[in-house]
Amino acid sequence: MESVVATEGFAKTPEPPYYAVIFTSQRTEVDNNGYDAMAQAMLALALERPGCLGAESTRNGDGLGITVAYFVDEGSIRAWQQNARHLVAQRLGKERWYSHYELRVAKVERAYSGPEGR
Amino acid sequence: MESVVATEGFAKTPEPPYYAVIFTSQRTEVDNNGYDAMAQAMLALALERPGCLGAESTRNGDGLGITVAYFVDEGSIRAWQQNARHLVAQRLGKERWYSHYELRVAKVERAYSGPEGR
Repeated sequence: MESVVATEGFAKTPEPPYYAVIFTSQRTEVDNNGYDAMAQAMLALALERPGCLGAESTRNGDGLGITVAYFVDEGSIRAWQQNARHLVAQRLGKERWYSHYELRVAKVERAYSGPEGR
Repeated sequence: MESVVATEGFAKTPEPPYYAVIFTSQRTEVDNNGYDAMAQAMLALALERPGCLGAESTRNGDGLGITVAYFVDEGSIRAWQQNARHLVAQRLGKERWYSHYELRVAKVERAYSGPEGR
């Protein structure tokens, strides 16, 4: 597989330290079109934030998803969490789209890529 | 949705601080049966480690997966990374199963669950 393909979907993050927001969520079965449109819009909006380093996101056929967004510091995360359009999305997420979620903010201390030597 | 269903697939982690190992990976298209068997075995083995708090794992139809495993401390992570059966799995992952991966070790500082009030 060519490297241009292999790294699609991965965030190109700098050397640690930086921050990760780990969002694990279970989708309800309602409003897939509305959800998909909002999820794409929010990902694009997050990536435009000056402190956002990138994001990785995936969801399986049972609706269990994990999105990890990377930020330079805590202040950038708090600003994103208070963004007006993001607040609207968060409210709809709580009301309609997620049956459960866990949100964790973590400081990345070390990181590795692979596989080496292929 | 009943809470017993809603929390399936989520790790029941304690109050922070604790550690997260974020493993984002792109599967090759080879050896699905071997991979699935090893992935299940490694998840079960990780969860048996005394310092492991739980794990969350998902992969989409394009083969992009994110697994986050939670540990009480750095020492527990290093012990798991050096586990003999895990080392075999890591080697096969590099040789056969992953076209690319990113591994990040992070200290979880704050955490939230939701949606509240549904």
